[in-house]
Amino acid sequence: MTFIDKLRRVQRKNKSLLCIGLDTDPAKLPRHLGRSRGAVLHFNQSIIEATSDLACAYKLNLAFYEALGERGWAVIRETLAAIPRNVITIGDGKRGDIGNTAEQYAHALFDELQFDSATVNPYMGYDSVEPFIRSDKRCAFVLALTSNEGSNDFQRLIFRGRPLYEKVVQAAMKWNTKNNIGLVVGATHPTELEPIRILSPSVPILIPGIGKQGGDLESAVRFGCDADGELAIINASRSILFASSGKDFAAAARNEALRLRSQIQNYRKQFFS
Amino acid sequence: MTFIDKLRRVQRKNKSLLCIGLDTDPAKLPRHLGRSRGAVLHFNQSIIEATSDLACAYKLNLAFYEALGERGWAVIRETLAAIPRNVITIGDGKRGDIGNTAEQYAHALFDELQFDSATVNPYMGYDSVEPFIRSDKRCAFVLALTSNEGSNDFQRLIFRGRPLYEKVVQAAMKWNTKNNIGLVVGATHPTELEPIRILSPSVPILIPGIGKQGGDLESAVRFGCDADGELAIINASRSILFASSGKDFAAAARNEALRLRSQIQNYRKQFFS
Repeated sequence: MTFIDKLRRVQRKNKSLLCIGLDTDPAKLPRHLGRSRGAVLHFNQSIIEATSDLACAYKLNLAFYEALGERGWAVIRETLAAIPRNVITIGDGKRGDIGNTAEQYAHALFDELQFDSATVNPYMGYDSVEPFIRSDKRCAFVLALTSNEGSNDFQRLIFRGRPLYEKVVQAAMKWNTKNNIGLVVGATHPTELEPIRILSPSVPILIPGIGKQGGDLESAVRFGCDADGELAIINASRSILFASSGKDFAAAARNEALRLRSQIQNYRKQFFS
Repeated sequence: MTFIDKLRRVQRKNKSLLCIGLDTDPAKLPRHLGRSRGAVLHFNQSIIEATSDLACAYKLNLAFYEALGERGWAVIRETLAAIPRNVITIGDGKRGDIGNTAEQYAHALFDELQFDSATVNPYMGYDSVEPFIRSDKRCAFVLALTSNEGSNDFQRLIFRGRPLYEKVVQAAMKWNTKNNIGLVVGATHPTELEPIRILSPSVPILIPGIGKQGGDLESAVRFGCDADGELAIINASRSILFASSGKDFAAAARNEALRLRSQIQNYRKQFFS
């Protein structure tokens, strides 16, 4: 099954555009779990068990696992093993390097760890992305306009009347010959989402930045979806993971995921039916 | 000791601007070593032992270790342990993410693995670089104009008469309040190196792309160095590592490193004395 088909299928089955970001910072775990690497895995497994019928995707922020040192890789692998096979997995490492190196990153994420997709940084151009888009079973989410403040430093520079992030979107669409490129656009840029969606009408858009980062959920749904009200992947991390710091953390995460999914569904009904 | 002092000291002691890139691809190891993870470590240790008096730095391309899976992290750690403490280490992962995530990457590379420096991707702006430049004992090499073909896709786009990579260099110099930022400029762009060095007269410039990638060594030395003929870090990877595929691989690597160091020294004499 292609990545796009798998994504549409799980979005329909779980009635959800919600992606849960497993940015599992050991320092923020509920106190009763401790801070060990085993605690991170146990926490992830509990969150997944409590939410996997409510999400279309899980995004693992690789930095948090690398920061665990030696055991981090095993925690990624065992976390992935806990995610139902019909739900999309995103290796969020924002990799980007020269061709022969990008190939190694793609091998690590797609062959070794078996992620369905990965985020990639476009700064180094086509040969840094190409190894991630060789199979239509895998998807590369290219950073376009990111959710952070630093997105204003370079991504909005104007070249011949158009911002850099639009040049990136246009290039990504040109590279998309296998229909397996996606984009990353932060929900913190609601007015830019619509023109980006117009340039790329039928690709998945991964939208981080709701929740803690204060992004705009209504615009994320309205302008992030394709014409059928699908293919937006709306990520929340900290607001779900750390909804409670007590023993009820998994139930609290489920409640927050339910609340977000239902808000998203309401906007979908409003704009796409 | 600050990063800059450590770099100047080893460049003087070893009379070398040469950085050896440990892009250790198991598929390219001398056949008698096998392809195991232990073979990668043994290979790295042999290369380091044969060359550490000839280099100012070793650059570990993280992708090649991630591609090893679970054991990759330990191979990085054990490789670093084999590098003499006076020689600079560079964690070449080209990381870049929002502030709280970049912090985790910096923690992984600088605290967990104890790299002296790391390469970072500027696309996401200041908050993605800031966690890497908190201590003047560490250095962040910001990608400016990379050595690959894809560098032409975005890095040369013209913004108000100046290319994107120059905007990156200017921003990086503004961020350089602790004198611990460096730049990455490929030796495959010899004519651009001089204007970049003029914009950033006293920062280390990491220059990949000589050897297999066909970059210009003379310009790398002439325009990559500061006014004292220092602070250029000229990287060669495959041409040294895989100089021989036989049992003499370490001696062949040493010969190639000697040859490159001496070529570099000749250009330094020509242009800086």
